[in-house]
Amino acid sequence: MDFAELAPDTSSYLGQVAYLQLCFFQSISNISASSKDLEATQTLSAAAGFALAKHQGLVAEIHRRGEDPTDVMAPFVPGIDRFLELTRGASVNESLLTLYITQGFLDDFFIRLSDGLPAEIGARYASLLGADSGSAGIVRLLTDAIAVDPKRAHFFAMCGRRLVGDTLLLAQSALNLEGHSKSDEARIEPVFTELIATHTRRMDALGLTA
Amino acid sequence: MDFAELAPDTSSYLGQVAYLQLCFFQSISNISASSKDLEATQTLSAAAGFALAKHQGLVAEIHRRGEDPTDVMAPFVPGIDRFLELTRGASVNESLLTLYITQGFLDDFFIRLSDGLPAEIGARYASLLGADSGSAGIVRLLTDAIAVDPKRAHFFAMCGRRLVGDTLLLAQSALNLEGHSKSDEARIEPVFTELIATHTRRMDALGLTA
Repeated sequence: MDFAELAPDTSSYLGQVAYLQLCFFQSISNISASSKDLEATQTLSAAAGFALAKHQGLVAEIHRRGEDPTDVMAPFVPGIDRFLELTRGASVNESLLTLYITQGFLDDFFIRLSDGLPAEIGARYASLLGADSGSAGIVRLLTDAIAVDPKRAHFFAMCGRRLVGDTLLLAQSALNLEGHSKSDEARIEPVFTELIATHTRRMDALGLTA
Repeated sequence: MDFAELAPDTSSYLGQVAYLQLCFFQSISNISASSKDLEATQTLSAAAGFALAKHQGLVAEIHRRGEDPTDVMAPFVPGIDRFLELTRGASVNESLLTLYITQGFLDDFFIRLSDGLPAEIGARYASLLGADSGSAGIVRLLTDAIAVDPKRAHFFAMCGRRLVGDTLLLAQSALNLEGHSKSDEARIEPVFTELIATHTRRMDALGLTA
């Protein structure tokens, strides 16, 4: 059995990713609003725009299925809000790191999971999610922050590690598990290993060890 | 002499409207982040996306002139930030009303002022600014708020009146006045009368008297 078989039904898939992108949009907008630097504000608002475009693309997909976006997203609001609460950064930089790590991880995860959806639509959602998210600009802001105060490197590295746990749990909650812990784990593990490898590359991009 | 002759130079024009749209984007995003209603959040994030698209369109115009957006916007940051501070709403509904009134007024104003820019580019900027800003959705949210608690009508009407003064002052600061108060006023007055008429229509749309 393959990981892709753990994919939820199409509506649940769309509801989760559409709401997640809306939340990413809001997180980035909030960070952008608290920035005093006009250049950073523009980088961040561009990234917010990318997340919003993904959200709107997914909402269009929900409409295309004749469903109501609010109804489809609603069941996933409590779980995702709890995740955001758990991972909320205490400073602008920590919020930015959280966004960079969790958005990267979850976009990768849902792209991977789209293999389990009917072929044509899965490919369409994956291409929506795989579009630019403005992470190059966010990496620049984070590496600038480390350059200004190198002590941040250690703190960021720690935060990055802590975030993986909560993010993995949210990802796992999206899977349609059988409840047989052994067989489930056998299918999940290689994929999560792969996702952690891409997480390591994201930390590398900041000059940090994962 | 015509009102259009009071238009600032093209760079100053672009710097102001680009920064204003960025601020509108941030205000709407903030309101959207504090809303607990998923449907309202979507209406607001769509409106935020429209303001962001205008900002990005104007930034592209600044690049097209070989100028740096941050440099071009920077001189207008203190004045616009002060305006936002002065007009900041104390509640979500008041913030939404502020946005609706000031964004509508200032977009109209800068579209009108674009007549004073070189013909081809003026028309291009006006068409950028005249694109949808999602105000139909915002009117719906505000009229819903009045329906829920009709006492809000009186409060909104008062807020709307108070906002006109500060907004007119910000608009006036964008004009390239001669310093001869009589001749300046003669040119400004008919345009401001016209802008106040469109403001009245915006209040009408909420079922309020201006």
